[in-house]
Amino acid sequence: MGTFKITYQVTVQQGEQIDQKVEGMCLEQTTELPRGVLNAGIEEKAVGKPVGREQLGEEQYRVVISWPIADVGDDISQFLNILYGNISLQPGIRILNGEWSKLYKIVFEGPSYGIDGIRNKYDISSRPLSSTALKPLGSSPSELADLCYRFALGGIDIIKDDHGLANQEFAPFEERVEACVSAIKQAAQKNGRRSYYYPNITAFASESVERYKKAAQMGADGVLICPHITGLETMHRLARLEVDLPIIAHPAFSGGLTTHETQGLSPGFLYGQLWRALGADFVIYPNKGGRFTFTTEECKAINRAARDEESPFKKSLPMPAGGIKMQNVERWIQEYGQDTAFLIGGNLYEHADGIQAASEQFCQKISQN
Amino acid sequence: MGTFKITYQVTVQQGEQIDQKVEGMCLEQTTELPRGVLNAGIEEKAVGKPVGREQLGEEQYRVVISWPIADVGDDISQFLNILYGNISLQPGIRILNGEWSKLYKIVFEGPSYGIDGIRNKYDISSRPLSSTALKPLGSSPSELADLCYRFALGGIDIIKDDHGLANQEFAPFEERVEACVSAIKQAAQKNGRRSYYYPNITAFASESVERYKKAAQMGADGVLICPHITGLETMHRLARLEVDLPIIAHPAFSGGLTTHETQGLSPGFLYGQLWRALGADFVIYPNKGGRFTFTTEECKAINRAARDEESPFKKSLPMPAGGIKMQNVERWIQEYGQDTAFLIGGNLYEHADGIQAASEQFCQKISQN
Repeated sequence: MGTFKITYQVTVQQGEQIDQKVEGMCLEQTTELPRGVLNAGIEEKAVGKPVGREQLGEEQYRVVISWPIADVGDDISQFLNILYGNISLQPGIRILNGEWSKLYKIVFEGPSYGIDGIRNKYDISSRPLSSTALKPLGSSPSELADLCYRFALGGIDIIKDDHGLANQEFAPFEERVEACVSAIKQAAQKNGRRSYYYPNITAFASESVERYKKAAQMGADGVLICPHITGLETMHRLARLEVDLPIIAHPAFSGGLTTHETQGLSPGFLYGQLWRALGADFVIYPNKGGRFTFTTEECKAINRAARDEESPFKKSLPMPAGGIKMQNVERWIQEYGQDTAFLIGGNLYEHADGIQAASEQFCQKISQN
Repeated sequence: MGTFKITYQVTVQQGEQIDQKVEGMCLEQTTELPRGVLNAGIEEKAVGKPVGREQLGEEQYRVVISWPIADVGDDISQFLNILYGNISLQPGIRILNGEWSKLYKIVFEGPSYGIDGIRNKYDISSRPLSSTALKPLGSSPSELADLCYRFALGGIDIIKDDHGLANQEFAPFEERVEACVSAIKQAAQKNGRRSYYYPNITAFASESVERYKKAAQMGADGVLICPHITGLETMHRLARLEVDLPIIAHPAFSGGLTTHETQGLSPGFLYGQLWRALGADFVIYPNKGGRFTFTTEECKAINRAARDEESPFKKSLPMPAGGIKMQNVERWIQEYGQDTAFLIGGNLYEHADGIQAASEQFCQKISQN
């Protein structure tokens, strides 16, 4: 079945040697026994093998390990385990990227639409996309639908639920979807231009599937999901269903993995490469300059991985959120390019001229850049 | 519906004020909009409220925030989102513990057996439990069954699959379970004493449910699951099924949450408190002195939370793993007490006298202490 490769940034801790640490990783993620008690057949077929190393600093290395696909089978859960199961608990190991074209179709199938599919579906040939979020939590379906109507009149392409809107009493899922789908249609009748509504379907895996189907039946245009809450594989399952709504992935609950400099998964790897493999058509990430802490370079690494032409998967559309305001959106378009969906939330709500006017200004900037 | 409280360790970053940071948390996890655009009703009913603060160091505070249960509804996914959704992406916020008795039965129901249930089921009145793992990955069902037989002859209480045994070609799930269940029975016939086999059922949520049912049908005694791979709520669903096998929770893929000093979830909170609420009968954690990095104090905090008498949930049985060897098991029994399941893996495999003799020695130490 062959192998796939993962590249790590390995920082040796006091008293550790790089050789031993890498040897430890090769065993920890597979056989979990010392070589002395392994028979030669298993040692050969199951244990990871270091295939590259480069020193990055006094105590830091870039290390490439090759893993047998047979250890994974066709199973995303077991892939995640080999990727970052036990080593998640050891210091100084950070995943930088994967060379896993061989896993395409065996383990992962990627987005069902991707950038080209979304552009085609919405007939938006080359410009960036505009997007926003319906909030706050605590609002009723009719309040959310009213916001949705005004955003749609203002011309926003994608109007998604806030990821905190689940199935609470104040705005149950079905009532909310019904009200917002209807608001989108009314706005389209009024201004002759269609916006697209994406409800949040984050829930237990099987309920996410039910809400996905229900959203499609009720006329929603796509869905939002927090894969680190539903379980990562849930997103992949949704992307494979016959019901075929595009998926926006939201990073809630994922920060433990990406915000530590010497541990976890690099943002480019997690939000760009892995989420793409797992079927995200849109990848929301916390943009530089907002309430979160990624650097511009990390944000660009996410964009690069999401759109990488070498990857066998359809491309994901980066959806930076946070830190984007009316007065700087041009700058971010320059920085990130046309294949981006820009998400402005709070700044549209705060706008002195109201939500519709704010949305119109945002969309004008999107169209002109 | 009332409120529940979460206690955080908040470390202010350069340029931050503690008041602003806590205010930011209260909004970020709920309405995600500035107060200026919230109406008074929503501000009152939906936004978190700081209800306690204590300074721990120059830049560090212990902060208690009270959250409306209405923001969660009865939904574990949305609970996880309020708990650590967007703030997972911000620096300096670590969850220390939850005061959530009010969520009992509304959101969480806890283990179906718990410590008393397990002791009762296995007729083990007060001593610690012994446990081990079947490995390595790459072994065939008959090789794993042969190991299982020898561990069982040696008297180990709980023999679990390594968490890397999924459904790979070399040892498909059903063949493996069939072979190991049979090995357990043969050993029981020979030595008149029953061991208990727990296969790994970690997979996509609905498949975990199928494997859980299949394991019960085939005569397995319990199951192992990696909740951070299946999705945390999957464990809770399993614990609620009519099929009623005890559940061991394994920490693979969770390290990003617990190994950073100023971010994430404290080990006591995640492995002790949250996993217990989510239905883990046994809680595996990486013990001090093994290949991982928790301190003895952190390990004891897990034990305390798992067994806390004040909590409305049945108690979870701590299952420290890593760093426990034949020559130090007495010390760990002294340290952690009788209500503990000690897991020795590699050290039994490496033993000069073979697996059965090693297991007998381990069980003797367990019985005498």
